[in-house]
Amino acid sequence: MASSLSLSQAISARSSPRHHPTTTPRLLPSSLSLSSSSSSSSSSSLLSSSFSLKSRRGVTRRSAAAVVKATAVEVLDTSSADDTALIEKSVNTIRFLAIDAVEKANSGHPGLPMGCAPMGHILYDEVMRYNPKNPYWFNRDRFVLSAGHGCMLQYALLHLAGYDSVTEEDLKNFRQWESRTPGHPENFETPGVEVTTGPLGQGIANAVGLALAEKHLAARFNKPDMEIVDHYTYAILGDGCQMEGVSQEACSLAGHWGLGKLIAFYDDNHISIDGSTEIAFTEDVDRRFEALGWHVIWVKNGNNGYDEIRAAIKEAKAVKDKPTLIKVTTTIGYGSPNKANSYSVHGSALGAKEVEATRNNLGWAHEPFHVPEDVKKHWSRHTPQGAALEAEWNAKFAEYEMKYKEEAAELKSIISGELPAGWEKALPTYTTESPADATRNLSQQCLNALAKVLPGFLGGSADLASSNMTLLKMFGNFQKDTPEERNLRFGVREHGMGAICNGIALHSPGFIPYCATFFVFTDYMRASIRMAALSQAGVIFVMTHDSIGLGEDGPTHQPIEHLASFRAMPNVFMLRPADGTETAGAYKVAVQHRKTPSILALSRQKLPQLAGTSVEGVEKGGYVVSDNSTGNNPDVILMGTGSELEIAAKAADELKKEGKAVRVVSLISWELFDAQPESYKESVLPAAVTARVSIEAGSTFGWLKYVGSKGKAIGIDRFGASAPAGKIYKEFGITKEAVIEAAKSLC
Amino acid sequence: MASSLSLSQAISARSSPRHHPTTTPRLLPSSLSLSSSSSSSSSSSLLSSSFSLKSRRGVTRRSAAAVVKATAVEVLDTSSADDTALIEKSVNTIRFLAIDAVEKANSGHPGLPMGCAPMGHILYDEVMRYNPKNPYWFNRDRFVLSAGHGCMLQYALLHLAGYDSVTEEDLKNFRQWESRTPGHPENFETPGVEVTTGPLGQGIANAVGLALAEKHLAARFNKPDMEIVDHYTYAILGDGCQMEGVSQEACSLAGHWGLGKLIAFYDDNHISIDGSTEIAFTEDVDRRFEALGWHVIWVKNGNNGYDEIRAAIKEAKAVKDKPTLIKVTTTIGYGSPNKANSYSVHGSALGAKEVEATRNNLGWAHEPFHVPEDVKKHWSRHTPQGAALEAEWNAKFAEYEMKYKEEAAELKSIISGELPAGWEKALPTYTTESPADATRNLSQQCLNALAKVLPGFLGGSADLASSNMTLLKMFGNFQKDTPEERNLRFGVREHGMGAICNGIALHSPGFIPYCATFFVFTDYMRASIRMAALSQAGVIFVMTHDSIGLGEDGPTHQPIEHLASFRAMPNVFMLRPADGTETAGAYKVAVQHRKTPSILALSRQKLPQLAGTSVEGVEKGGYVVSDNSTGNNPDVILMGTGSELEIAAKAADELKKEGKAVRVVSLISWELFDAQPESYKESVLPAAVTARVSIEAGSTFGWLKYVGSKGKAIGIDRFGASAPAGKIYKEFGITKEAVIEAAKSLC
Repeated sequence: MASSLSLSQAISARSSPRHHPTTTPRLLPSSLSLSSSSSSSSSSSLLSSSFSLKSRRGVTRRSAAAVVKATAVEVLDTSSADDTALIEKSVNTIRFLAIDAVEKANSGHPGLPMGCAPMGHILYDEVMRYNPKNPYWFNRDRFVLSAGHGCMLQYALLHLAGYDSVTEEDLKNFRQWESRTPGHPENFETPGVEVTTGPLGQGIANAVGLALAEKHLAARFNKPDMEIVDHYTYAILGDGCQMEGVSQEACSLAGHWGLGKLIAFYDDNHISIDGSTEIAFTEDVDRRFEALGWHVIWVKNGNNGYDEIRAAIKEAKAVKDKPTLIKVTTTIGYGSPNKANSYSVHGSALGAKEVEATRNNLGWAHEPFHVPEDVKKHWSRHTPQGAALEAEWNAKFAEYEMKYKEEAAELKSIISGELPAGWEKALPTYTTESPADATRNLSQQCLNALAKVLPGFLGGSADLASSNMTLLKMFGNFQKDTPEERNLRFGVREHGMGAICNGIALHSPGFIPYCATFFVFTDYMRASIRMAALSQAGVIFVMTHDSIGLGEDGPTHQPIEHLASFRAMPNVFMLRPADGTETAGAYKVAVQHRKTPSILALSRQKLPQLAGTSVEGVEKGGYVVSDNSTGNNPDVILMGTGSELEIAAKAADELKKEGKAVRVVSLISWELFDAQPESYKESVLPAAVTARVSIEAGSTFGWLKYVGSKGKAIGIDRFGASAPAGKIYKEFGITKEAVIEAAKSLC
Repeated sequence: MASSLSLSQAISARSSPRHHPTTTPRLLPSSLSLSSSSSSSSSSSLLSSSFSLKSRRGVTRRSAAAVVKATAVEVLDTSSADDTALIEKSVNTIRFLAIDAVEKANSGHPGLPMGCAPMGHILYDEVMRYNPKNPYWFNRDRFVLSAGHGCMLQYALLHLAGYDSVTEEDLKNFRQWESRTPGHPENFETPGVEVTTGPLGQGIANAVGLALAEKHLAARFNKPDMEIVDHYTYAILGDGCQMEGVSQEACSLAGHWGLGKLIAFYDDNHISIDGSTEIAFTEDVDRRFEALGWHVIWVKNGNNGYDEIRAAIKEAKAVKDKPTLIKVTTTIGYGSPNKANSYSVHGSALGAKEVEATRNNLGWAHEPFHVPEDVKKHWSRHTPQGAALEAEWNAKFAEYEMKYKEEAAELKSIISGELPAGWEKALPTYTTESPADATRNLSQQCLNALAKVLPGFLGGSADLASSNMTLLKMFGNFQKDTPEERNLRFGVREHGMGAICNGIALHSPGFIPYCATFFVFTDYMRASIRMAALSQAGVIFVMTHDSIGLGEDGPTHQPIEHLASFRAMPNVFMLRPADGTETAGAYKVAVQHRKTPSILALSRQKLPQLAGTSVEGVEKGGYVVSDNSTGNNPDVILMGTGSELEIAAKAADELKKEGKAVRVVSLISWELFDAQPESYKESVLPAAVTARVSIEAGSTFGWLKYVGSKGKAIGIDRFGASAPAGKIYKEFGITKEAVIEAAKSLC
């Protein structure tokens, strides 16, 4: 330990009035002048400097000890015992809050919080900049607990740091109905939690997205005289996260992009649920991350090597062109005399007896959920300090706004999520005279139109930009040295792509990320699409080659069950537009709904611009495209989506020639349609009309809802085939003739 | 080049009578004696030795040149020109078969075959052991084109090697309806193709499964005096495969398991669809694979460095305790003067003009699809040689069978896929007196019972063995040094796990691999489950924690839409058993159907053994569990699956007390039920009875099919929540009371 200032003095120094930022030379040797370390030092603000001082003190102590003279070290050592004692008390507070909450719930994961409490303490108490009373303050550092099962670590830290979202009561309600402390961190339940984690590997990939967002915004908006965007992304990931392919994908990109302000702690505890990691995980993680272009540091004693942890963070911050992995070797369940270092402490309550033994072992005489007064006092500074940090940033932003009006307006839109007025007017419009085109191409027109008016619009494809048609023509590629650009190049990494976009979306409400691949490869990223839906991240999933219409690539590339599988998923819009108008409508829906992700299924093949399609219709999910009947009573209703709406329309034309009263209905989004009032639904699909035929080049699963027990659903309930698209349509009976035949059999 | 034997002489030497295996010292220096190289050298068979000689000749030439005296080198060099000329002719034949087929189809991927033709040639012509007339010969070397879009490479090789599955006609029908040369390699269409690839990364993970299967069988069945299992697994993967997380997961395991007979060629061509790999893929792949425990070799000239490739294979075979990655730097579209080394040659036909230019550039004066006579003749030896290899192995097996009767019977069952008679009798039986238990525990009883009677039964969990209850108690862990064991430890790698199991299943028909995780994490492995369904790999997916019934872990861990999403997928049985009897029935179905994978959704929570459940009922997918009505005309039908069947039964009991005629139906597998004759379905769900209520703790999506437009489906159409299971069931209305209320409203 290396500070001559007692902890209480340090606290008062930290929360002292703004105009004494540099404190005394006695406190910090000259080698630790303010300009020597983290990027925050370039901030011109006094308060920020004062805070920088704090965080710098934390992470540089060991260096300080190394550079000051022997006498100084003695002084430092003398006073450090108090510091350390209080810090250990704080760390044990975290441990026991976790132990007690898991014990009370009789459910949860005490092992990680017990092992990671030291790094957690240092992060939230010494390093991170945040305002506990406004968890949404834009320029906060972000923290992601990728190993989300250890959520009691995060809840304990939020509680100590003064977040209103996690009171003592909340801790006592851990894992209970409607509590704000659910079984895994959920951003939509607990302010202060940035993203939803638990499914392993998602969090670290989200963190890559958060760090990408920061790097992008900093490059776009910072000025030589004003660093308005400047924050770090921290994450803790475990062995499980490391094993998941999604983390490899995202971390490979983080290295490629040089996300220097991403600092990930790898909780290297050698234990996973099945026991020692030796049974399934013997790769050299350090070396792998070096191969991925990361800076790697090993903290050998994560259980109480506070200075090692601080030094590692300092080193990580000094490496500005690479993300850093700090491997922290810890003991899972540290402090538990009989269960530490075993899988038994991973995911179950310790049990009364072992809790008692752990209390004795760590000298913790307190009641459950007790936070000692001195620990409370120690942490209490974060409330005023956080408020001051935000106020200072607000003042800086006000100045920025004066100087850089246009940029400030854009940034404000991204921060607030308020879309520029009239943005939807930018969407292209089409008439029946517009040329036939693939909806993937029409989608590209929409993407490019939206990028012009939406400051937070950015995205890319998993190495299929030229097939998905997703390039933004007015922008270059987001790369290590051009992070201000907006075309993201994800490589063939669908799962990582989705999770990264979730992170971007949850960084700031005005970010509207999109990502693209072939529709069938949603299978590769389904976990991240579900996380978008659950965590209310309004990502737009641009999925082209949406049926057997892609032709020769065959069944491995032809989606069949995918529409149905997403229609069954909560909080997702599954949109399958039929032409340009519907594609524009689909984008309107997708952009408007910032808390519901949208999946657009788009065709590879050309489609005509249909008469009767409309944006308003799209917004209702289902609507009448054409009808020659009167009195809401057609002879037959033909329904379709996407490329098959054309087939339905053509069949209708023929049936009308034969004198039938035929209605054609587009059911572009079942979720939107189902949410309409009954009266509207009846106006589109009158109950009295039971002669109904649906056609869709995908599984018929679920269509019964609309065609009814007397109707017919034309679709594909087998895998696809490799052949030219027209041939497959014909062989699979996805034809006008089939619709006509079915319709005639019903009316 | 390093052979003094002219090619035709070499061929005749290779196909020469069995009693002259070692040929002349002039041909091979003594340092290349038969005992010095590949593991096949320990084979006692003459013919095998003769073939070993061939393959050994191929891969050791460079070494030979290095060790023999200068005069010898001269001799070798003199004759090598002829060899090289013919080999290059063969390589160009492969290139142009690919070019011509893609051109004729005007669809496909010429770039990879043009770049990988040299390694492809060496593998199929010089290295691999196979019998083209019996693609299913057990002891063949396996080849997987993980970069499946380059399938014309494989079709060209199969054609040259003499496989009947790929005739000239088939090549001309590339990517056409019902051809045996679909757009990506499909094992179920083309004998000689081992697994179905195309979705990137799957193939290399399948290859890990194939190599695991070989290592396991070799350890179990080889004897000091008889190596009955001895083959290699080769794969070609591209940059895209490398980027996918699934390949990282599988390759990490391959390193961990020390799969020394897995040799993967990494087609390092620096081009992906979006252009140079520089835009998204700058990690150090070599170093990453070293970190994963692989041996890594770099062949710098993959375009025509034949000797380099041979030497690399030799080196790879010499490293017996690690898998090998041979990074082969190639030029995509090699030979095309204007398109080589660009993404434009990746996935489109070259076009007539560029085909012409390429013909000129490579000096290829032949008509499309022409195979020159000398090339044909050169390859023709594989037919007799392959037949001889198989005959020799058959003879060896006959001897093995005499000596090791029991082992031979087991191995035979694995090779043939013929299940031991009466195996199903091993399944546990239950009565209503049997204790209540979670179906995950009952599943473990089934797994352990089956492992005793099914020689090819093996599997494991993605680090959740103690939660999924999947350990086979009588076996240890399959590990590097204990590969004869049957518990696979996949670590937290669901996607890799699924793809590896597909590889195991497709290695030999008698392998019945199972793999396990929480049901919600099928999202991580959905792509591999779909590939199991498509490629007819009868893997058993053991998915526990199948609903909100898992409780406190919350919505990230609670499946909702998953049952529906798999019910929509072709060729999968989605089974959700309600008790012990149904669990046993589900396993019976799963084991019986070797070409359809089964997913078992199993409860975390205890369930009672219900009256009326039956294995026979399970086999029909849906059946009457109880009924107090007469004449197939109950007042109401209550339907459920899994843990909710109990609720339906309890509701029925109460309704019966109130005088209602109630039928309870288990719908454990919709796929099986839908496949029953109409008469049977009518006997279970009579059309006249419209008062129907279903209950399932999952999405109601799709239930309309069974409850009908007048019925009611009780389910969960939102995300789950974190709380004790009972509380969530109650709050979500998944209760007996809700069923009773719905029933009363209908009858």
